[in-house]
Amino acid sequence: MTDTASTRPSRRGRGARRDARTAYTQRFLPEMERGIPYLDAILPEQVDIVHDRTMTLLETTGIEFRDDDSIEMWRRAGAGGGVAIDGHRLRIDREFLMECIATAPAEYTMIARDPERTVTLGGRKSIFTPAYGAPFVRDLDGTRRNATLDDFDNFAKIAQMTPAMQMSGGVLCEPMDIAVPHRHLHMTYSLLKHSTKPFMGAVTSRERAEDSLEMARLLFGEEFVDQHTVMTCLANGNSPLVWDESMLGAAIVYARAGQPVYYSPFALAGANTPASTVGGIAQLNAEALAGCAFAQAINPGSPTIYGMFLMIVDMRSGAPMTGTPDLAHMLLMAGQLARFYNLPVRSVGMHTGSKALDAQAGYEANMNMHAAVHGGINLITHCGGWMEHGLTVNLAKYCTDADIAAGWLRYAQGPRVDDFDDAMQAVREVGPAGHYLGAAHTVAHYTDAFHMPNVMDQTSFEQWEEAGAKNTEQLGWEQADALLASYEKPPIDDSVEAELLDFVARRMTEIPEDQTP
Amino acid sequence: MTDTASTRPSRRGRGARRDARTAYTQRFLPEMERGIPYLDAILPEQVDIVHDRTMTLLETTGIEFRDDDSIEMWRRAGAGGGVAIDGHRLRIDREFLMECIATAPAEYTMIARDPERTVTLGGRKSIFTPAYGAPFVRDLDGTRRNATLDDFDNFAKIAQMTPAMQMSGGVLCEPMDIAVPHRHLHMTYSLLKHSTKPFMGAVTSRERAEDSLEMARLLFGEEFVDQHTVMTCLANGNSPLVWDESMLGAAIVYARAGQPVYYSPFALAGANTPASTVGGIAQLNAEALAGCAFAQAINPGSPTIYGMFLMIVDMRSGAPMTGTPDLAHMLLMAGQLARFYNLPVRSVGMHTGSKALDAQAGYEANMNMHAAVHGGINLITHCGGWMEHGLTVNLAKYCTDADIAAGWLRYAQGPRVDDFDDAMQAVREVGPAGHYLGAAHTVAHYTDAFHMPNVMDQTSFEQWEEAGAKNTEQLGWEQADALLASYEKPPIDDSVEAELLDFVARRMTEIPEDQTP
Repeated sequence: MTDTASTRPSRRGRGARRDARTAYTQRFLPEMERGIPYLDAILPEQVDIVHDRTMTLLETTGIEFRDDDSIEMWRRAGAGGGVAIDGHRLRIDREFLMECIATAPAEYTMIARDPERTVTLGGRKSIFTPAYGAPFVRDLDGTRRNATLDDFDNFAKIAQMTPAMQMSGGVLCEPMDIAVPHRHLHMTYSLLKHSTKPFMGAVTSRERAEDSLEMARLLFGEEFVDQHTVMTCLANGNSPLVWDESMLGAAIVYARAGQPVYYSPFALAGANTPASTVGGIAQLNAEALAGCAFAQAINPGSPTIYGMFLMIVDMRSGAPMTGTPDLAHMLLMAGQLARFYNLPVRSVGMHTGSKALDAQAGYEANMNMHAAVHGGINLITHCGGWMEHGLTVNLAKYCTDADIAAGWLRYAQGPRVDDFDDAMQAVREVGPAGHYLGAAHTVAHYTDAFHMPNVMDQTSFEQWEEAGAKNTEQLGWEQADALLASYEKPPIDDSVEAELLDFVARRMTEIPEDQTP
Repeated sequence: MTDTASTRPSRRGRGARRDARTAYTQRFLPEMERGIPYLDAILPEQVDIVHDRTMTLLETTGIEFRDDDSIEMWRRAGAGGGVAIDGHRLRIDREFLMECIATAPAEYTMIARDPERTVTLGGRKSIFTPAYGAPFVRDLDGTRRNATLDDFDNFAKIAQMTPAMQMSGGVLCEPMDIAVPHRHLHMTYSLLKHSTKPFMGAVTSRERAEDSLEMARLLFGEEFVDQHTVMTCLANGNSPLVWDESMLGAAIVYARAGQPVYYSPFALAGANTPASTVGGIAQLNAEALAGCAFAQAINPGSPTIYGMFLMIVDMRSGAPMTGTPDLAHMLLMAGQLARFYNLPVRSVGMHTGSKALDAQAGYEANMNMHAAVHGGINLITHCGGWMEHGLTVNLAKYCTDADIAAGWLRYAQGPRVDDFDDAMQAVREVGPAGHYLGAAHTVAHYTDAFHMPNVMDQTSFEQWEEAGAKNTEQLGWEQADALLASYEKPPIDDSVEAELLDFVARRMTEIPEDQTP
């Protein structure tokens, strides 16, 4: 593989249209550290009941791990009687399960290539990550087309430049122009090259996970990766109550390497969970806990994340829905349960089912986000670019989502109160019928008193019309263009870059293009 | 005035485009009764401090009531030494202020013309109301034009038909084709004729308030209005620390009649409050409490609402902003203070600064709504149609906002837990790798397990493209068309309608078109 960026069509041609309004402060925002309280959707005694029924479910109905190696690991770990094994079906004793879970750290730190972008999550600390896995991209003209590696590179660059996105991400889009068995090589290379933030490795097979890990070792050094967390990866569960071979294969690789995986059942509530929010949560709880326990059984004490991917079925049509009140309840309950188990928790962020970057996309994104933030979700995924239930991503929505994420980060810190006495002094000085714009207090605080979004448009109707009456999607594209035009590749040791390229080239010759995982 | 509806251009021509998808269940949703906890942005001891500094501000700097009659009322009420008067400036003793506040009821019931649309607000009960006061409307083609009485009538009809909008509203838009001194007559008539929900009366002068009240008496009977709450009206404060003559004149009329007013300082935080969220809130607290105390001094025990209208200044340009984290903090603090004073509280809902019904409109609306809902705001205003910081309203956004409001109503109730045992039984029955769509539990619960929005689009990309790739604004218009096409005027006693029309006609001859309030 060669770096073909210079031969790919550039999006920079639209750079001329950007103006001072889209100038972006490229400061990095560290993890969100909450000052606001958690919001509990159910009572502590109801959490106890959900926990008890979850344990009963795992003890009686059990769960399937459809991978012989995984079953063998369970057999060894549960040799003391903690697990009853019947083919791929496990029935896990509650005491044993809770012993496994107890070894997982409540928070962990991901070391970034740029130390200033190192972040911690778990407990009161949360991070935002971009959308993951879309095969399509939406262009400025509304066309939906196959994603390419060029798109991927652009998303990786934007990931580096958006302050509130604390990881570069994983499958920022599916580079459909690259054969499936080679994609993970190009994606990992793009992430490592274009961004200095923590990243995600491939999870679609054991071999691909090993490649991702090997590339991380080339970048950070083998010993460093052995001793530090530098990435976080996804394992999707197959609800109800199944973990599949491909995800388990990758999960084993990462667990042994001490790199965290989020064990995240993929819920379409009502289709693969019962038509009940709390019932659905209990089933997903069983699945996520079994995944986390599996990781701890393999490598006790390594960071492991309790995860839930959430969509709900529209019972009129069978279509997926997001941004609904029930999904918000499920997010709040997911956070409550994760706190009960003292585990970091992953769930969904700025999801939308909308095919356009329209009002629905905004309503739904923030309906989900409030619950993710109030529920204390630590790894808030899909906060950049997600559309059409994850089938499509879009650079414009990436930029608007990132703008909104920065606002949520500020929100979760809670209101400032240290400025209260000074502010009250200003009220006395200004007095009835005065105004504050010229007051000394305002002059001292005008840059930091209030969060000011970047993409959201604050101009008057007349200014807006004069500027072309642009909607959020158009403004998001201008932001994306401005970011890409000012993107600078972060410094990387030439020899390291050469090693990464050599690795990609070698693996491409070793892996047949038509290999199936 | 005559009913000219039949001669006005009808929006029903587009009715043919609607399809089964836009069919709307016209059930009425009663007030939102929260099952979720309140979310407190600041600690109880910080509330105590804000209270103390507010009291000190009213005792030392004081507040202006720029109306001689109002000053005279304060003089009589505070004869025991509770108020020091200097021209229009009042300095109010904290004990006296708190005695006044203490007589206000914590909740009240508004009787609707249709008893099934009677609602209660205060405490854990909240209602949604439409946008208020816009001079412009935005059409389907994006044109912004002056609003007319025809538009007003359409908004009043939609208000009647949207389940989660529990009042018909007040100035649904400014009918710019009617002379200002006559507008209140036409607006009140339209509200009373087209909707059976509780409504809002005119507040721009004492005389107009009396007209609104007289029309309510014609509808409900004089004695009934004397003894019941049938409406709720707005008094905007003039921050910092001023209440103006026109609003006070109307407020006096309503307070004497026992009809509640929300005393609602109009904040542009950073311009007419200090550049501090908690400092701003303390100033607004002083203003709102002085308003509520004024109403209680006039008519102790009558319902009175503590209000705050909130926008924040973008310090880069001086433009208003909404949907930001600081505004959310202010909403949460407003709710906390109202609970401290045991008063019903009004604040903002689905605000946006956006000029189009685009993603920004959705993001901002739900950023505000989450805080209004979590903060326990009881009268959540501007939940239907608000755009461009209230300068423009739009039927499409009215319908999308109402769709989202129904979701928030469901959200605030909290998750169902009574179905948990049955749901767990279904999990055991379905087991690993099963599916739920045909399960007995699903069949029993598929219509009520999950909230399903009406306007938000859940179709696949292919279905959506086939149907014309419509964005939320277009879908909102289809909903509006469908509602207007199926609107039926609610029954009204012919003699009552004749009396209302006579009253409007008489007052139009009595009030010069060029009268200034």
